[in-house]
Amino acid sequence: MLNSKDLYPTRTEEPVGMIPRLDPVIHSDEHGHWSGPLTDEELRGFERDGYLFFDGLFPPEEVEAFREELRRLEADPDLNDWDGMIREPESNEVRSVFGIHRADISDRFNRLARDPRLLDRVRQLLASEVYIHQSRINYKPGFRGTGFNWHSDFETWHAEDGMPRMRAVSCSIILTDNHALNGPLMLIPGSHKHFVSCVGATPEDNYRRSLKVQEFGVPDEDAIRTLARERGIDAATGPAGSLLIFECNTLHASNANMSPDPRSNVFFVYNSVRNRPQQPYGAPGVRPAFLGEREDFTPLER
Amino acid sequence: MLNSKDLYPTRTEEPVGMIPRLDPVIHSDEHGHWSGPLTDEELRGFERDGYLFFDGLFPPEEVEAFREELRRLEADPDLNDWDGMIREPESNEVRSVFGIHRADISDRFNRLARDPRLLDRVRQLLASEVYIHQSRINYKPGFRGTGFNWHSDFETWHAEDGMPRMRAVSCSIILTDNHALNGPLMLIPGSHKHFVSCVGATPEDNYRRSLKVQEFGVPDEDAIRTLARERGIDAATGPAGSLLIFECNTLHASNANMSPDPRSNVFFVYNSVRNRPQQPYGAPGVRPAFLGEREDFTPLER
Repeated sequence: MLNSKDLYPTRTEEPVGMIPRLDPVIHSDEHGHWSGPLTDEELRGFERDGYLFFDGLFPPEEVEAFREELRRLEADPDLNDWDGMIREPESNEVRSVFGIHRADISDRFNRLARDPRLLDRVRQLLASEVYIHQSRINYKPGFRGTGFNWHSDFETWHAEDGMPRMRAVSCSIILTDNHALNGPLMLIPGSHKHFVSCVGATPEDNYRRSLKVQEFGVPDEDAIRTLARERGIDAATGPAGSLLIFECNTLHASNANMSPDPRSNVFFVYNSVRNRPQQPYGAPGVRPAFLGEREDFTPLER
Repeated sequence: MLNSKDLYPTRTEEPVGMIPRLDPVIHSDEHGHWSGPLTDEELRGFERDGYLFFDGLFPPEEVEAFREELRRLEADPDLNDWDGMIREPESNEVRSVFGIHRADISDRFNRLARDPRLLDRVRQLLASEVYIHQSRINYKPGFRGTGFNWHSDFETWHAEDGMPRMRAVSCSIILTDNHALNGPLMLIPGSHKHFVSCVGATPEDNYRRSLKVQEFGVPDEDAIRTLARERGIDAATGPAGSLLIFECNTLHASNANMSPDPRSNVFFVYNSVRNRPQQPYGAPGVRPAFLGEREDFTPLER
């Protein structure tokens, strides 16, 4: 371990189990809480559940423009050699495009990442300036889009990217209507208050496989069972243009898309500039920059 | 083809596409409709949708007795060599036990198959005496239970068991509460009115693999898309003890079970004694008796 102190040990040989969260959920700085558009009730909801859902926040014409940009990126020949272009293991269809907040990849999504509707909420929750740790589009084609198992993003970012503390949030904007049956993002409310440590040393270059099938950083089933039994499982369902903000340590998963309709979303991970990555806490090396930013911590500006 | 006339060609080399249903949905005999407990409204619902759902039809104490019998069968050493005992490809956990209506396998489920709450409804729909074409328990363990893709049961029974006409219905009794997020049975309302012919010759002994992963008898995605866009996708959700009756040609599927709770159900396929199997319409040989009865057509009696 190259870091002096690890508050959230994971990828260990022996099971560590569940560790209580040691970081605040709603952050503050030396001046106290940050002001922003979130109401007290919304802040209490985020504190309690670990996520907030804003039904239809982006109007249809904006959503249509995002979808257009999705189609453009999917077909962009310049991106064929881009490491952040991930395809389905079997069908070779595009599953994700990473790095979409970069101005040289997408001007539109670069602007969206700095949109006050996202930025003001995120800065209020993290009580600091923020930068993008990771960004991506997820495509989930009709009938074929696969799901992913229960996990905490923070566990991966801590183990593999060296993110020291829980002071990051993700924003997901759904670009298609999401129903309970169509493989929406599922969340376990309240799970962000526990760090579920995972067993097993991370192999080198794990990310190459883990983007397709996650084998390390998989939480113990008993822990998920315990947390899910407490408050159940919720799903981020709603019309296209809805925004989900979820805390970096909230357990989430998604099922396969068995509907005829593609489901897509845009995804930005905001990290506090006061929470810069260190050496990875549970992996032999760092991941490429498209998965975890390590150099550019310039605060985002509108 | 050994049968003189095939109304529903499938497993063909060239695509046949969608064929309109040629059989009635609610059957009648020379005396007209059969009497039974189903109301006119329920009959209209079955005619229109291809299924009926009875919320909590079996009371909790009966459901508990069924669950006990499930656990007994799962662990019964006498069933270890039973061909109808199917395990998950990876974990080796029990996925299904077939033939559970047989008195020598389960006295309790033998009685359930003849229970008037099922039998009277089924005979009313099929307007004749009935026998069991196939029966099984499905286990879907928490986190691990896999799903199955969109298909019509009739397509398989026609191609591989030689069931000539659409005059069969399935009864599924859910033994655990089913929520939209937990991999419930999904159905396409109205799909029973179209026969979706499938491309590709059936290999010998296809059933050995198809019980785990279905590769033949997979309907064309465009057909499913067309049918699902018309009236959407529904899910059989409700409390333990609910009964789903669905027409043999209704398209259905289910997603993986990502909840911590196991989902189980008991499943009986009732075929009209006037619809006895012929030679398979789309396979080189017949399947074993536990998948499709070929000898005993004795009408079920209470």
